[in-house]
Amino acid sequence: MKKFEHLTHQFNEFLEKQDFSRKPAELYDPIDYTLKLGGKRIRPVMALLATDCFGGNTEDTLHAALGIEIFHNFTLLHDDIMDDAPLRRGETTVYKKWNSNIAILSGDTMFALAYEYITQTKSVYLAHILKVFNRTAIEVCEGQQFDMNYETEEIAIADYMQMIKLKTAVFLGASLKIGAIIANAAPDDIENIYQFGENLGTAFQLQDDLLDVFGNEDKFGKKTGGDIITNKKTFLYLKAFEFAKEDDLKTLQSNFICNHSDNELKVKLIKEVYENLNIANYTQIEIGRYYSLALEYLAKIKIPKNNLKDLNDLAERLIKRDY
Amino acid sequence: MKKFEHLTHQFNEFLEKQDFSRKPAELYDPIDYTLKLGGKRIRPVMALLATDCFGGNTEDTLHAALGIEIFHNFTLLHDDIMDDAPLRRGETTVYKKWNSNIAILSGDTMFALAYEYITQTKSVYLAHILKVFNRTAIEVCEGQQFDMNYETEEIAIADYMQMIKLKTAVFLGASLKIGAIIANAAPDDIENIYQFGENLGTAFQLQDDLLDVFGNEDKFGKKTGGDIITNKKTFLYLKAFEFAKEDDLKTLQSNFICNHSDNELKVKLIKEVYENLNIANYTQIEIGRYYSLALEYLAKIKIPKNNLKDLNDLAERLIKRDY
Repeated sequence: MKKFEHLTHQFNEFLEKQDFSRKPAELYDPIDYTLKLGGKRIRPVMALLATDCFGGNTEDTLHAALGIEIFHNFTLLHDDIMDDAPLRRGETTVYKKWNSNIAILSGDTMFALAYEYITQTKSVYLAHILKVFNRTAIEVCEGQQFDMNYETEEIAIADYMQMIKLKTAVFLGASLKIGAIIANAAPDDIENIYQFGENLGTAFQLQDDLLDVFGNEDKFGKKTGGDIITNKKTFLYLKAFEFAKEDDLKTLQSNFICNHSDNELKVKLIKEVYENLNIANYTQIEIGRYYSLALEYLAKIKIPKNNLKDLNDLAERLIKRDY
Repeated sequence: MKKFEHLTHQFNEFLEKQDFSRKPAELYDPIDYTLKLGGKRIRPVMALLATDCFGGNTEDTLHAALGIEIFHNFTLLHDDIMDDAPLRRGETTVYKKWNSNIAILSGDTMFALAYEYITQTKSVYLAHILKVFNRTAIEVCEGQQFDMNYETEEIAIADYMQMIKLKTAVFLGASLKIGAIIANAAPDDIENIYQFGENLGTAFQLQDDLLDVFGNEDKFGKKTGGDIITNKKTFLYLKAFEFAKEDDLKTLQSNFICNHSDNELKVKLIKEVYENLNIANYTQIEIGRYYSLALEYLAKIKIPKNNLKDLNDLAERLIKRDY
């Protein structure tokens, strides 16, 4: 998909032109460090792609796209404090490299910088763009809080689906929506591209859960089994508990409830249960369900076929991966 | 000053109508708790007052004023984590009452809510309002970082003045400025009211430093000497080190450098040095300098005399207090 690569290049060029080496260094060094860690830049590129698909000029969306990427990185920065995570994209997390206080305050500054960039968008629809962004920012925080709550609460699959919608899916939808608004898209199209993105985002997160267990470690870039080791209640975990009986249930309970002394063995045992119960298959079905729903919304968008193809390529790129 | 009381009442009525009892409770309970702790509501009332002085309708500024107050409370919430502060307005701080993670994330949500309210301002100048607010939010974060840095760095009085400008003064200026923009004030007036507020804010912070040592404990609402006990490098501290010789210098050094075992004695000894060196007097002079500067900017604002008097009353209320 040449379009995606082209827009990624355009975004990265714009990002590289920004100068975050300001004072006090303790505040801006972590911001510079975080933004240079890379990442796939999915969200900002989605914003640019939406603008492009509705015939807008992607130049007009660069500031908003950067605001979106800075906001995303801000959430990761604060999440890493809350999750006590030592690594992000293979590098030391900000709160480990500096300290918690610096991570809190650099994060806060990134939040403000995100708004500073978004507000620079030259559009008569600025208030609308900000309304979408505000709502999404609040929902992402709500999602993170539900995620933390669920570490210690019993939850149903519906709770989990609602949590990943807030924490991940709405932001993918909003990135597309903001790009569409800047391109002056029609209200129905704006709503449909949002729904396309949100359902795609849910499928994307479920795919992530699946790959965390069954992914190709070389391509996935991290060891599989992380969610199993940390007892994360993913879709796979919840589905397995729904179906497991006798020996499988005992294995699940004994391995998930206590912290296992041997993580490799724990992952192996749980993977075997998932395989016995066909959990990968159930997850694939659920991914397919959200993916189809996304494509239904895509089909409703009134833009030239070539542009629909670009959005379709985006969907494939996010979902049809084994890494 | 009846005007100030009237606007405070208008603001509090608007605040009370808002409902922050949303889900997840772990996220919104701390927000509700924080906003109900009270406080003087100086910043939002300054925004309303500015609108009123320029002939605008204060109803139009209520959303922005609430956004300003929510942002202010967000900074306190995160500052309390960073400063390890157990109490805020006489009540347990959020991170002590709940925990750090909840305090981080509730704070983040308040930041987003602040923008949600500000964005609801019905004004053709929304982009301008947001630009002012974004810049101020970033400066407040910079000020807090300088403040943290200075705990372990040697600093000059000029550094301290720059820090309190960023951490406190710019936000008072911005609150007035936003109120003025909403009332469609002229560009010169907008700049002058900002400078009025910023200089007033600096005087206000110096007054706070002074009252922390020499205030009337009953009216001040907290025990004096807090800054001395925590070795905070305030204007008084820096000025005393500039002038102290022989015995006074020894007392300052021995008491400020180590943690004293007897806090009451420490406060007593340092206060005596401050009295020997006439530090209160020097601080009053500096307060007077910024206060006069504020009034010079005030005099340039082209509004009816009665309205100038309201702003003058505001200045007196903030500075001519012994609590």
